[in-house]
Amino acid sequence: MECQWDECFDAAVEVARKGGEEIKSAFSGEKSIQTKSSATDLVTETDGKVEKMIISTLSGKFPSHSFIGEESAGNKVELTDNPTWIIDPLDGTMNFVHGFPFVAVSIALSVKKEVVVGVVYNAILDQMFTAQPGKGAFMNGKPIHVSGQEDVKKSMLIAELGKSRAKDKVDKVFSNLGAFYNEDKSIHACRVLGSPALDMCQVASGGGDACYLFGEYGIHVWDIAAGALIVREAGGVVLDTTGGPFDMMSRRVLCASSEKLARTIAEGLTQMD
Amino acid sequence: MECQWDECFDAAVEVARKGGEEIKSAFSGEKSIQTKSSATDLVTETDGKVEKMIISTLSGKFPSHSFIGEESAGNKVELTDNPTWIIDPLDGTMNFVHGFPFVAVSIALSVKKEVVVGVVYNAILDQMFTAQPGKGAFMNGKPIHVSGQEDVKKSMLIAELGKSRAKDKVDKVFSNLGAFYNEDKSIHACRVLGSPALDMCQVASGGGDACYLFGEYGIHVWDIAAGALIVREAGGVVLDTTGGPFDMMSRRVLCASSEKLARTIAEGLTQMD
Repeated sequence: MECQWDECFDAAVEVARKGGEEIKSAFSGEKSIQTKSSATDLVTETDGKVEKMIISTLSGKFPSHSFIGEESAGNKVELTDNPTWIIDPLDGTMNFVHGFPFVAVSIALSVKKEVVVGVVYNAILDQMFTAQPGKGAFMNGKPIHVSGQEDVKKSMLIAELGKSRAKDKVDKVFSNLGAFYNEDKSIHACRVLGSPALDMCQVASGGGDACYLFGEYGIHVWDIAAGALIVREAGGVVLDTTGGPFDMMSRRVLCASSEKLARTIAEGLTQMD
Repeated sequence: MECQWDECFDAAVEVARKGGEEIKSAFSGEKSIQTKSSATDLVTETDGKVEKMIISTLSGKFPSHSFIGEESAGNKVELTDNPTWIIDPLDGTMNFVHGFPFVAVSIALSVKKEVVVGVVYNAILDQMFTAQPGKGAFMNGKPIHVSGQEDVKKSMLIAELGKSRAKDKVDKVFSNLGAFYNEDKSIHACRVLGSPALDMCQVASGGGDACYLFGEYGIHVWDIAAGALIVREAGGVVLDTTGGPFDMMSRRVLCASSEKLARTIAEGLTQMD
């Protein structure tokens, strides 16, 4: 299976770089911002422009393939067995709006519902994360590995705080963090970056030991499809937040540097959906 | 006053770069880690090694100057009118231990208790933040500016979650965040980086609109002396977390992109000391 998709892999890397350059050139300037579901759910001109460019490039090269893109998906997100490109043109739009340097293009290719290409590119920091099944994970062409950490007390958690400001949801977000911020089960530290795709790449590259993401944070398959392959190929564990098997369409994911750590985190979490 | 300290500024930039290179070369390898006040308060060989190098370089050039360094200060932190170098050799030690790319060398020169040189260098991302009074603030030689944001509802907060895991302290940390995570006074988002010096530089460079830091997070003068000058020279506001005047020896600081935003944040905070 691996070799068959090499051409797609190369095309994904190339178009992610091109999209990243577009993002980088718009990063410092004035942005045209619109809100989506709420005052904290933003979209910019750049999101749509980069997605269009990526889809038109890839559909030109692979006319029989299907596409799921954050900006064009609307309410209908359906994954079939057909080769399907799953695209987040600008993961971390809020960061982009604020000039906070964690923004990425995320591109995955799913074939028979298995991801065979995963590419996440942060153009601001020029970090290209890539993976293909069985070939390992890389940043800028160099192999990356998870930390292998098993002990929750020596772990750095990469978390998100979500877009909701409703009290019951905010309480759950903080209570989930609090589960690891106490004298009993104290983690080393927690960092919040605001880019699910890059959260997962932090775990893949050992710059964090675990992360968990819920649909209530606004995540979808385009935020996590590429990242999940990158984490697995870096030797990490990808599960559902409940500890069950990961389903990329479920809008829930838990990544960790080891099976043991993943289980400990899953046991500590209150589910949010 | 400005010109008089140009030689010191140049020396600070040079030695920060040298220290940063030392940090970068140790960043991916195995680290020799020790705990300080608690299981979440770490120090590595690199902290001490870089501080020694910085102090020996600067004291060779400026033998009459005084020094306050994180690793050599012990319990005695006294700031006099004498030209005094205030040094954090490795801000973000926890990040360094975990390979999370927000670590910095922070160097300030205080003269008559006013900071005349501020340098913060993140070698991993190769970002050199610098400032001198009246000359503006820079990243890698290019001028930087705060966002100018006045509206808390459109702000990105850069926060820390602290090192304590005691329930009363963790509750305060989350309640302070919660003050801006509700439907009434909702911020755009919050990010957590784990490096006070770089938190401040994010505000200075517009990649965040405000940050606040309490002594209970483990911050000291060496974390904030350089950053405070950089924020001010970038057009930002630096206050005490209460909204009063900033005193770099107080172990409390509030930085914001505008006076109005600083006041709004100060009013929302529960003091932690």
